Amino acid sequence: MVDHAVAVIGLGSMGMGAARSCIRAGLETYGVDINRDALGVLKDAGAAGVSENCGDFAERLDSVVLLVINAHQCRTILFDMGLADRLRPGTAVMVSATMAADDISDIGARLGNRRLIVLDAPVSGGAAKADAGDMTVMAAGSDDAFSSLAPVLEAVAGKVYRVGSRLGMGAMVKIIHQLLAGVHIAVGAEAMAMAARAGIPLEVMYEVVTNAAGNSWMFENRMKHVVDGDYAPKSMVDIFVKDLGLVTDAAQSLKFPLYLGSTAYQMFTAASNSGHGQEDDSAVIKIFDGIDLPGNR
Amino acid sequence: MVDHAVAVIGLGSMGMGAARSCIRAGLETYGVDINRDALGVLKDAGAAGVSENCGDFAERLDSVVLLVINAHQCRTILFDMGLADRLRPGTAVMVSATMAADDISDIGARLGNRRLIVLDAPVSGGAAKADAGDMTVMAAGSDDAFSSLAPVLEAVAGKVYRVGSRLGMGAMVKIIHQLLAGVHIAVGAEAMAMAARAGIPLEVMYEVVTNAAGNSWMFENRMKHVVDGDYAPKSMVDIFVKDLGLVTDAAQSLKFPLYLGSTAYQMFTAASNSGHGQEDDSAVIKIFDGIDLPGNR
Repeated sequence: MVDHAVAVIGLGSMGMGAARSCIRAGLETYGVDINRDALGVLKDAGAAGVSENCGDFAERLDSVVLLVINAHQCRTILFDMGLADRLRPGTAVMVSATMAADDISDIGARLGNRRLIVLDAPVSGGAAKADAGDMTVMAAGSDDAFSSLAPVLEAVAGKVYRVGSRLGMGAMVKIIHQLLAGVHIAVGAEAMAMAARAGIPLEVMYEVVTNAAGNSWMFENRMKHVVDGDYAPKSMVDIFVKDLGLVTDAAQSLKFPLYLGSTAYQMFTAASNSGHGQEDDSAVIKIFDGIDLPGNR
Repeated sequence: MVDHAVAVIGLGSMGMGAARSCIRAGLETYGVDINRDALGVLKDAGAAGVSENCGDFAERLDSVVLLVINAHQCRTILFDMGLADRLRPGTAVMVSATMAADDISDIGARLGNRRLIVLDAPVSGGAAKADAGDMTVMAAGSDDAFSSLAPVLEAVAGKVYRVGSRLGMGAMVKIIHQLLAGVHIAVGAEAMAMAARAGIPLEVMYEVVTNAAGNSWMFENRMKHVVDGDYAPKSMVDIFVKDLGLVTDAAQSLKFPLYLGSTAYQMFTAASNSGHGQEDDSAVIKIFDGIDLPGNR
């Protein structure tokens, strides 16, 4: 047992993986979610405690990892539900939701006022990597924040990139990463839809691309769902509507021209608007008409 | 020595690699180019013969591989310069230039009239893979075409995808592949330019992306040139102006909406229009103003 108590807040695909990785690394691990099934799963996996709210074990904690969806959920948990007031001074808060740089700066300032330590620490890698304790973390914060959270980072991350010390730099790196991820999914869909239109068998197109210079991590992972006709959500269309919205906001505040990112944003928004928001993000291909896709008859 | 005589026409980065691979595999290999330096290099590497025109050894050949730039060059060599008339009936012609499906159909029909065998066989992989005999070939043609060219495909290709029997299907698969490749370079540039604008060190951004789900083959290969500030051309901006032009033409004839491909096409065209057409294709990043790039001061 490592002498470090951590609570993972948000037990979705990434949070559950991170929490299991903490348990496996011997940390005293707590889990928080409003989904009781997720709490049961984590309890069975060896959590020291699980709860629907955060008050039950707040005072024991050395650190908190926030793996919720966005800045709004982080603020609700920390400030409206009162977690920030119950944590001991010096507790480290790792904020891993994808959010605007201004949001993490603001949250960081409010936590700093309560003498809490903050790490701006978005993550990437998907559910499988989270489960293996092999997430990629792109983090910004003080030396203190990195050293306080070292046992947790050790447990959950394969790679930790220290992108700077100013809060917001981690968020910005994640946002730019999501620009790439979102465009790669959208252009994968555009290419597969064009292949379908041209009468190229999709499994042939997939096989060629994944063995050639046109490949991307997202093409290989997500276009498999299109080949299989399986749109059960691993990560949803609406997540990219949110993330490419953040990319658009960031570009706007930088006065930066976002040629491809803005186009991909419209594509995901069109897919959501057509009723596919809760499907797998590869369902962005459904904005293309006049083609016959596997499983879509 | 394998009992097969092949001429590789076009000794650029891909053609030279393919010709060397044929020599290494023991084929009787001839090389044709208007660049005398390239001819000297191939002669020294063990070619059975080299020439600036194609007539010298045409009658000895079992096969011809066309690794020139486009359909126009293929037609010039085959028909205007008269190679097609000098080849023995039954000689196999592997057409590996990137071109429209209609062009290879037309070239194939004209060669068929002369009782020549045709394979629609675009390639991918870059100079290093060509040199290693490890290109990816996406080919369409008759059984006869595949079996006649088997010794050559064996020598030059790591993977041969048989995408169909109708001439034009190989060309279309390559065009859709180039849609992905071109958008991946352009969005890589957009992301790196945005990082520069936001004050993120480019080597940090590169390192994070190449270890996360936002990676692509093109991002990893081409954005290294941006990090190094090195725009010496491996493959030029103007090649993607050409290839994304072919993608646009293909989409138009399919009445297919090309959201991202058309945007990337404008980005490369803008880079070419600003005088960067002969630089490495990663120089598409130079369309973004107000940022400070390595080597660009």
